[in-house]
Amino acid sequence: MSMNALQTLINQIEPPDVDAMRMARERQNNLTKPLGSLGRLERLSLQIASITGNPRPHLQHKVITTMAADHGVVAEGVSAFPQEVTPQMVLNFLHGGAAINVLARHVGARVVVVDMGVAAKLAPHPALIDKKVGSGTDNITQGAAMSAEQALQSILNGAAVVEEEIGRGLDILGTGDMGIGNTTPSAAIAAVITGSAPAVIVGRGTGVDDLGLARKVAVVQRALTVNRPDPYDALDVLAKVGGFEIGGLAGAILAAAAHRKPVIVDGFISTAAALIAATLVPSVRPYLIAAHRSQERGHTIMLQWLGLEPVLNLDLRLGEGTGAALAMTIVDVSCKVLDEMVTFAEAGVATQEA
Amino acid sequence: MSMNALQTLINQIEPPDVDAMRMARERQNNLTKPLGSLGRLERLSLQIASITGNPRPHLQHKVITTMAADHGVVAEGVSAFPQEVTPQMVLNFLHGGAAINVLARHVGARVVVVDMGVAAKLAPHPALIDKKVGSGTDNITQGAAMSAEQALQSILNGAAVVEEEIGRGLDILGTGDMGIGNTTPSAAIAAVITGSAPAVIVGRGTGVDDLGLARKVAVVQRALTVNRPDPYDALDVLAKVGGFEIGGLAGAILAAAAHRKPVIVDGFISTAAALIAATLVPSVRPYLIAAHRSQERGHTIMLQWLGLEPVLNLDLRLGEGTGAALAMTIVDVSCKVLDEMVTFAEAGVATQEA
Repeated sequence: MSMNALQTLINQIEPPDVDAMRMARERQNNLTKPLGSLGRLERLSLQIASITGNPRPHLQHKVITTMAADHGVVAEGVSAFPQEVTPQMVLNFLHGGAAINVLARHVGARVVVVDMGVAAKLAPHPALIDKKVGSGTDNITQGAAMSAEQALQSILNGAAVVEEEIGRGLDILGTGDMGIGNTTPSAAIAAVITGSAPAVIVGRGTGVDDLGLARKVAVVQRALTVNRPDPYDALDVLAKVGGFEIGGLAGAILAAAAHRKPVIVDGFISTAAALIAATLVPSVRPYLIAAHRSQERGHTIMLQWLGLEPVLNLDLRLGEGTGAALAMTIVDVSCKVLDEMVTFAEAGVATQEA
Repeated sequence: MSMNALQTLINQIEPPDVDAMRMARERQNNLTKPLGSLGRLERLSLQIASITGNPRPHLQHKVITTMAADHGVVAEGVSAFPQEVTPQMVLNFLHGGAAINVLARHVGARVVVVDMGVAAKLAPHPALIDKKVGSGTDNITQGAAMSAEQALQSILNGAAVVEEEIGRGLDILGTGDMGIGNTTPSAAIAAVITGSAPAVIVGRGTGVDDLGLARKVAVVQRALTVNRPDPYDALDVLAKVGGFEIGGLAGAILAAAAHRKPVIVDGFISTAAALIAATLVPSVRPYLIAAHRSQERGHTIMLQWLGLEPVLNLDLRLGEGTGAALAMTIVDVSCKVLDEMVTFAEAGVATQEA
């Protein structure tokens, strides 16, 4: 039943629309600027045209979904912050005082906060979406993070969040995460799927010292040895070394692609979710835009595996969707350039000499 | 008299306010995020605090000044576009159909269009500021671009534009340019001031082919041989191989710094103006933010000479202030993060473990 739901979602993901892209390119090439002189802005607008099937796309409704969960692996001392910070930061998101709130307001996006598996009972709040799969994962150094059923459920729950938001208006999705300890499962996922050694993937997360970093590398190594996830089976990887918010974000990505909505993938944790999504469905890749290159060590390897070049390089390593929000305003204006600039003919401007 | 006016402007430029920066850093370090996790955003907010002297700065009034002029050196076949495009694009700016108009609207900046020396009589327009120093420069392969008096006047005219805009409200300035052929004098300025060979500085501008590129390198080399500008005398460099809009932008930069307003330096041409400004007054550097790394070849060398790391890398090479507008929204939100995020204590969030 649930597996059928996932298959249905996967089957909905179509190739991008090359006709819309061609029409967008024709228009770009006639706007009053030297050919190609807006570089990445031009390429982004063509990608959005191909994703949406609209040669002059508008990104009116912008959504950042910030998904939160906890991780049993914090028992191994892998984070600089205590686990209680996860629910505290969820409240901070709901009250509008966190970085993602400031950035989302600036770019005109709404923040959709989701409890995918926080290890605390969160008081109901009108802006909090309850999609809890469990109260935090189990410790991945001692066994699987979650059951196979929970892995599937986390993906479906994340997809449901996006489908509900599409009903409220969603033209572009940015992903975000909150979960003390979640750079550790993300690094484990990245090591498995990209086939890299933990030592080149694991970074300092929220700020562990050299000893903490060495401990994290050993923890990821142990998690892989204990669990032996199958790199070609995304659900197996997610269940054995993943997290509920990571599964939720993978589902969010798949649902956005299934509905021809562009997805801006935030940093390290969101990119781990994108690795899960792209392992499940390689054809999701054209729908993805990498927001930024995180300071977290292995991020570049993950982006390379996905074939993505990040829009921004601002030394960010916060998560929450902060990089996605910043990149969203660049993607947004790339479409405005395509739509609002005049052509050489309209402006009466002489064209490039042959 | 005019020389006194320049000296007065120069004398107004004070060092940045380290107390305001320290107070801003203290606040940044108490906001609900891991220390330093917003990377460049945090550093930008501290820079703005130090420039403005305000530990919680607001950038309400945003201005992009796009300065236009023509260049006698186009007679040497250095541009892919005919000279008539300069006044045509000025009209396009005034009608709101150019890239800079779209980008400035997106980021909430007003565009101030200035005729610094277009080689055509422009019809009066309420939004066009007439600061014309001459009808285009002379051909720099045959002698000086302009007289010493014109060089000084172009700087003072550019400064006057910014001082008038400060009267209308200006919290941050972005520079922009329009002038067919102006990558050639900009490359000449860069070669002189950074002490680099023309071949490593000159790029394709709006899009010359390989033959055109070789011709541009030879043209810049000839301009330097004929004129022998003194690299330590910015006015001499500007007069011999510069342009009226480049002088105007150098003046705009100095005036902004004199009034403690941050300046976002756009791409290749604006950075040539920044080289002039920083050669005149080295203490202008802390007021500068490099918008982006242009695709134009020598730009990185120019940024290194200035000690600036660009905010964006989007393969832009358009000018007009387009990169400055995009970077402006990042700088703007960096201050909003500093101002609007709550602290750990305010949010009741546990801090980093010792």
